[in-house]
Amino acid sequence: MHSPSSSRAIHNYCASPSPFRSSSASLVSSSLCAPPRTLALNYRRKYLSVRGHRSDFSDQRRQIGRPPSPPPEEPTSFSRKPPGALNSKVFVGYSIYKGKAALTVEPRAPEFAPLDSGAYKVSKEGFMLLQFAPAVGNRQYDWSRKQVFSLSIPEIGHLMSLGAKDSCEFFHDPFKGRNEEGKIRKVLKVEPLPDGTGYFFNLSVQNRLLNMDDSIYIPISKPEFTILNSALNFIIPYLLGWHSFANAIKPENSFRLNNARFGADFEWGR
Amino acid sequence: MHSPSSSRAIHNYCASPSPFRSSSASLVSSSLCAPPRTLALNYRRKYLSVRGHRSDFSDQRRQIGRPPSPPPEEPTSFSRKPPGALNSKVFVGYSIYKGKAALTVEPRAPEFAPLDSGAYKVSKEGFMLLQFAPAVGNRQYDWSRKQVFSLSIPEIGHLMSLGAKDSCEFFHDPFKGRNEEGKIRKVLKVEPLPDGTGYFFNLSVQNRLLNMDDSIYIPISKPEFTILNSALNFIIPYLLGWHSFANAIKPENSFRLNNARFGADFEWGR
Amino acid sequence: MHSPSSSRAIHNYCASPSPFRSSSASLVSSSLCAPPRTLALNYRRKYLSVRGHRSDFSDQRRQIGRPPSPPPEEPTSFSRKPPGALNSKVFVGYSIYKGKAALTVEPRAPEFAPLDSGAYKVSKEGFMLLQFAPAVGNRQYDWSRKQVFSLSIPEIGHLMSLGAKDSCEFFHDPFKGRNEEGKIRKVLKVEPLPDGTGYFFNLSVQNRLLNMDDSIYIPISKPEFTILNSALNFIIPYLLGWHSFANAIKPENSFRLNNARFGADFEWGR
Amino acid sequence: MHSPSSSRAIHNYCASPSPFRSSSASLVSSSLCAPPRTLALNYRRKYLSVRGHRSDFSDQRRQIGRPPSPPPEEPTSFSRKPPGALNSKVFVGYSIYKGKAALTVEPRAPEFAPLDSGAYKVSKEGFMLLQFAPAVGNRQYDWSRKQVFSLSIPEIGHLMSLGAKDSCEFFHDPFKGRNEEGKIRKVLKVEPLPDGTGYFFNLSVQNRLLNMDDSIYIPISKPEFTILNSALNFIIPYLLGWHSFANAIKPENSFRLNNARFGADFEWGR
Repeated sequence: MHSPSSSRAIHNYCASPSPFRSSSASLVSSSLCAPPRTLALNYRRKYLSVRGHRSDFSDQRRQIGRPPSPPPEEPTSFSRKPPGALNSKVFVGYSIYKGKAALTVEPRAPEFAPLDSGAYKVSKEGFMLLQFAPAVGNRQYDWSRKQVFSLSIPEIGHLMSLGAKDSCEFFHDPFKGRNEEGKIRKVLKVEPLPDGTGYFFNLSVQNRLLNMDDSIYIPISKPEFTILNSALNFIIPYLLGWHSFANAIKPENSFRLNNARFGADFEWGR
Repeated sequence: MHSPSSSRAIHNYCASPSPFRSSSASLVSSSLCAPPRTLALNYRRKYLSVRGHRSDFSDQRRQIGRPPSPPPEEPTSFSRKPPGALNSKVFVGYSIYKGKAALTVEPRAPEFAPLDSGAYKVSKEGFMLLQFAPAVGNRQYDWSRKQVFSLSIPEIGHLMSLGAKDSCEFFHDPFKGRNEEGKIRKVLKVEPLPDGTGYFFNLSVQNRLLNMDDSIYIPISKPEFTILNSALNFIIPYLLGWHSFANAIKPENSFRLNNARFGADFEWGR
Repeated sequence: MHSPSSSRAIHNYCASPSPFRSSSASLVSSSLCAPPRTLALNYRRKYLSVRGHRSDFSDQRRQIGRPPSPPPEEPTSFSRKPPGALNSKVFVGYSIYKGKAALTVEPRAPEFAPLDSGAYKVSKEGFMLLQFAPAVGNRQYDWSRKQVFSLSIPEIGHLMSLGAKDSCEFFHDPFKGRNEEGKIRKVLKVEPLPDGTGYFFNLSVQNRLLNMDDSIYIPISKPEFTILNSALNFIIPYLLGWHSFANAIKPENSFRLNNARFGADFEWGR
Repeated sequence: MHSPSSSRAIHNYCASPSPFRSSSASLVSSSLCAPPRTLALNYRRKYLSVRGHRSDFSDQRRQIGRPPSPPPEEPTSFSRKPPGALNSKVFVGYSIYKGKAALTVEPRAPEFAPLDSGAYKVSKEGFMLLQFAPAVGNRQYDWSRKQVFSLSIPEIGHLMSLGAKDSCEFFHDPFKGRNEEGKIRKVLKVEPLPDGTGYFFNLSVQNRLLNMDDSIYIPISKPEFTILNSALNFIIPYLLGWHSFANAIKPENSFRLNNARFGADFEWGR
């Protein structure tokens, strides 16, 4: 999404204070920015939402204990689609399980728009979906009570550039710019652990529509942060769509382009 | 493997102590987590194991001197399979040879499970197989006496985030949760060399079934650790299966998905 | 471009002074090094340039507010080309929006030349096109007044190796070695922010042909620099063309080559 | 090359002394380890070598000024091969030009060997070919007097792990283990520049067959070293062949393998 004016973030604070307006075009969170795979799911949820609190905004599911990637409901939902439409799709993530909560981090693909020329441009950058679920027993997590947070690319940069003693704070409002603006506020805090062995991730969600406050903590160790960083570093070019530019660089194409360019050189008047 | 309750690790200690329960869903070691390529081999070994001590659990082979990737037996074993079934398979690794031992590090692929929709999810993360063989002469190593250790992704993160003076310790029990639990204990220690020029890798295996104790040391220099880190950093996204998600991101698909999504937007009630 | 003598850079200075002549074969800037996608655009601009000041050299466009990747004119321009010729092309970039200016960073592909053998060699390295646009309102940017700067691969290396307190300065003359040499001078300065939270990017352009001086400042935060670095690190091998070498490494090909080589070994007389 | 006993290196010294025998299975240098592309070239050179001194061992060419990737002779040489055999081949490198010398760094592909099963294994790791040419004028280099040095993967690790004040030294003997052992000795020294802005690369070659001593110096700045490191970090997995393992990881294959494994599970006796 190249237009900064459509940002829905309120503001991001960081311990190492930046005097400049952040460029982070923060993405909508929760079900509001649901990727394609959850469309059918959203459809079902919408009509079932009267049966559970919080179901409209926290993308919750009823199953307990297993991480939701993909959730049990989805295969059913998907099978309503024309076959083959999504057959190259793969659900991936990175999950961290701790005593009081679990965190699953999943990439979401960028979107492209076709141009009249047959070429494409990136119309919306990809992002990372963070899903937090509270523990309800020994290594059992209640994914129906999960809270989600979408990390934009600039926010991913914040995370990756965190020094061992730095902290970070992101504010999201899924309804930013709409009627319900301010009704839901999400804050993701990342703070160093007191003993320096990693970070605390804390997602707190204030939902005035449901009159509900929620807060989930999970400690992330240095090794886990290392893996996360490595995976993020890998995925960033894909979230920016740069891989599709890069993969199109082929010696054969270059030759044709060069010929065309040599022929067009006189147009430059030199 | 997303379910943390199926972990077979006992516990991991690290010199920079973490107060939190490790998330490392440590993989079974030795032949118990043998990847596809060793199936036929395991079959043969099983019926030959009466001829050698330790052959059941340490995945040993009789050849001496050459690193086992792939072992001599395998081509034969493989040729019993239908032709073409594995023709894109490539055996790769990174080997380090020293005076008293050799170490070979090999990646093992993740596994995917199909969904009803035609999409896939990662059903089991990949891992790294470490194989240690003692030296029996000048640059001759006895791979029949090798000991193996499977590094899970969180454990790979431990290794990659090691400071120059940090040490690390992983405990595996291949029989964790089974009748034979505690019969075999494996400990991998990684400690800084006294002069700071690298690390000592030490794998010790206590096997009460065979009444055997084994311990193999190998020093890894900083340059070798650099190469290992670079290779691990490359392979992590593949072990997590993220590459298959990333490779599926194509401008053409995005366009179709977008169209579908625009059509479905009214389902969200906005 | 392997020939250093065709460099059009004047000189580059860096805060950490290098006593050696820089190898940076700096690329021409502005429309003079316009990549294929802007050919048709250049054609139009050329004949329209009388209508606007600066239009010959600063590749400006009239639209305001949206980043120019790709610019609105281009689809039209492209549609004049034979269909299918460019259908795998994807326009990508990384954009940073701040209060007084916006910066878009876009990769430009290397060029290859065919050899008689059917093989290819890299004939011109890729580069990064930096486009700076001044703000004209709240998150509105005037891309018609943009200034561009092409970063060569050595200059990308300068940027990536900048310490937190280092600064950097690049000088480009688009007409270096031509009649108009010295008529246009571009200087890109990268300096640490006073509080150490990032860098100031400043592009100043002195155009004696149009009797015009221009200077655009934009602060880049550490997180934004982290993303930029990650994307640059990803794209460097592609700008060098190494990916096409790497992708050609296939076990099947190797086998054939090896056979050929074994057969030819006697030619070496050993 | 997995067999350490076939190493032709004499020894490598590093400023930060390692007490352990290096694992670096150093590759033969010069024309002795000529990759496929130089086969025809070697053939020609062999029969032409009486015409020039040093031509047997320093892979020299007569052209002056342009970097040798690929050399002018090669297209001709290649065209004798069956068409199509090498049509995906791409020559790539990274070149640095300075006042007194030029350095070109080129990757060389690993080799694979087929197994009876239809699978492949890496039979010889790839390496980096360093080519040094002295300057003979303003940005003119005499590639006919070039000296070459092949960096093995462990040696690449040395280079990549160099601290700002570290130095490194590699010794190669192209004839190690042959009759002419000791007749040619090559030493590559990498030392920090006095002002800390980069490194000095010095290749010295002592050739007793031709009664010739040669030594080429070239300073490499930090930015150039950064690009080199980035490119090396990219190429390492390809030199190890890991990319071919990684690219074979596909959800569809995994499913088939999993099925096969489930069926074979009883073979393990559990």
